[in-house]
Amino acid sequence: MDIIHPTLLLDKKRCIENIKNMSAKARANNLAFKPHFKTHQSLEVGEWFRDAGVEGITVSSIKMAEYFADAGWQDITIAFPANIKAIAQLDKLAQKIDLTLLVDNTDTAKALSEGLTNEINVLVELDAGSKRTGISVFDDKAVKSVINYLRAADKLAWKGFYSHFGHTYGCRGENEIKRVFSSSLGKINELIKRRELQGLDLHIGDTPGCSVATGFPGVTAITPGNFVFYDVMQQQIGACEYENIAVALACPVVSKRADRDEIIVHGGAVHFSKDHINTEKGNSFGVMTSLKENGIGDAYPENQVVALSQEHGLIKIENKALINDIKIGDIVGVLPIHSCLTAECMGGYQDFSGNPVDHL
Amino acid sequence: MDIIHPTLLLDKKRCIENIKNMSAKARANNLAFKPHFKTHQSLEVGEWFRDAGVEGITVSSIKMAEYFADAGWQDITIAFPANIKAIAQLDKLAQKIDLTLLVDNTDTAKALSEGLTNEINVLVELDAGSKRTGISVFDDKAVKSVINYLRAADKLAWKGFYSHFGHTYGCRGENEIKRVFSSSLGKINELIKRRELQGLDLHIGDTPGCSVATGFPGVTAITPGNFVFYDVMQQQIGACEYENIAVALACPVVSKRADRDEIIVHGGAVHFSKDHINTEKGNSFGVMTSLKENGIGDAYPENQVVALSQEHGLIKIENKALINDIKIGDIVGVLPIHSCLTAECMGGYQDFSGNPVDHL
Repeated sequence: MDIIHPTLLLDKKRCIENIKNMSAKARANNLAFKPHFKTHQSLEVGEWFRDAGVEGITVSSIKMAEYFADAGWQDITIAFPANIKAIAQLDKLAQKIDLTLLVDNTDTAKALSEGLTNEINVLVELDAGSKRTGISVFDDKAVKSVINYLRAADKLAWKGFYSHFGHTYGCRGENEIKRVFSSSLGKINELIKRRELQGLDLHIGDTPGCSVATGFPGVTAITPGNFVFYDVMQQQIGACEYENIAVALACPVVSKRADRDEIIVHGGAVHFSKDHINTEKGNSFGVMTSLKENGIGDAYPENQVVALSQEHGLIKIENKALINDIKIGDIVGVLPIHSCLTAECMGGYQDFSGNPVDHL
Repeated sequence: MDIIHPTLLLDKKRCIENIKNMSAKARANNLAFKPHFKTHQSLEVGEWFRDAGVEGITVSSIKMAEYFADAGWQDITIAFPANIKAIAQLDKLAQKIDLTLLVDNTDTAKALSEGLTNEINVLVELDAGSKRTGISVFDDKAVKSVINYLRAADKLAWKGFYSHFGHTYGCRGENEIKRVFSSSLGKINELIKRRELQGLDLHIGDTPGCSVATGFPGVTAITPGNFVFYDVMQQQIGACEYENIAVALACPVVSKRADRDEIIVHGGAVHFSKDHINTEKGNSFGVMTSLKENGIGDAYPENQVVALSQEHGLIKIENKALINDIKIGDIVGVLPIHSCLTAECMGGYQDFSGNPVDHL
């Protein structure tokens, strides 16, 4: 493989192992598996999920839904509050596939019901602590009002609830993830009991929770996405190990500052995006890794990307022997902090046989 | 204008005013003006620069150089350490245009000299405090060694120095910017004097410095880029006012959490990228603005984007009257923290007449 420019390498073996593990977990817990495709946004990776028995998928935009619908996916949930400005586009999709949308307020439900000519499924989004979208699990009045509207509304088939426990991203370690996951799920189950609801779908989606939780009471489907690649943030949270991370950005070394123990690579904010984690030594925008002939090798967690500008990445090399070995024109690997955003920035992958892998 | 999805609006009037102001400043100070095109990456915006008399430009990648070379730009500097893996591509460019590359080490110079068949111009990059790339202005030995190599090298015409004072981004207020700019320039002029160099080019590029500096001793060309749009970070630094910011992301409102005084918009990390500034109230990922029929209106600095996920943006509305006015399905404007990255994520603009404007 002759790499000239920043290239997002996809380790197919690690990726398929991640897919198989999560798929086996869903089966073992008697859950439907509707993985979120926003991380990879790839038809080819989608086929690896199909090989694992997946039929229904989750996406985060209408554009993604169209991309996968065009490739033959029939059961698609757009896990983002329905955008009522785009009703014509949603209606067209609903004609073609089995479309599920999220609703967290009556205004949206009303606009959809009045504007659609084709029927869609609706999940009510609940906020169990993530403080993003969704009706608060404690707001019985709002839940009741939206459900009552949906039950009576034309074109909308209310199926149940969706919730993303985004607050597991603040956890560190398996125990804390399990505690937050289980307490969030508990709040939803209490709401369902209080409101005497039965036979409903309940879709739950965060990668940290789905990776480590051992019980899923009340859940009917899991919809995690990031686990397909994982990343440094998930390793930090405690959802995976470095050796599960399935993508690495291959970056040409363009300069060295031995006086600062730093190398400068072509690999910046336009390649990685700009998510970071806080470490003892400051912000980290990526972790250096070795690259092998046939896949990603061992991580070098001591060597971090300490700064990113538009095209530049600065890697601090703590290992003195290594900095002497690295030459201008070498290619170094970097594990991304947030693989979803890095994949989005790069817009495509290369596997270790040198073949391109698509991205929306 | 009927906006359905997140759309990057370009206020042509503000943009052209920014171009005219910087161009007038260069003329008044007897400097060549070789603006950095990495911020807009647009052929159309490039034409507005041509209308202001610009002939030479600066870019940050080979891809950008090719984009503008194909559109007829003949004098292009790639202000990024030359990537020796891409010599064949650089050679092809050098055959077509008057190409200038940056070099900050002898290994790169050697690889270029040995690998190129066409002649290029070279600027030696100096680090006057930005701690990114470039030879330290205090490292006379390294400067001497690279210059000696370049003077003797085949295919390489050494023209002078380039330096990006990226450390002005840490400044707050005009006085601090002026102090850092002037002291950095002073260090370069001292180096030039120490080494008894004469008649060389000196290209200097940061937007904060070029926006507020009143003297440019020794400089032959300025190469700022961000000023074409400016952004919230530049306002924060003290390089511009809100009313100079020429791009705003128009975002559909998809949810409201009145209990938290928040609206949720379609406009996330894949649209804005994820740069932020620190404010008294926490991180800010964008500032809400009014949008008028024919351009960007007044900023609402009290209403900040407080969180971004892949597709979601959360805006905290401090103005209680305003939150009641905002309805699901409305379009709100957001001034980006870092316009270069937002433009890169969006990959295109729309002007206020509804016409598309290209982006690489």
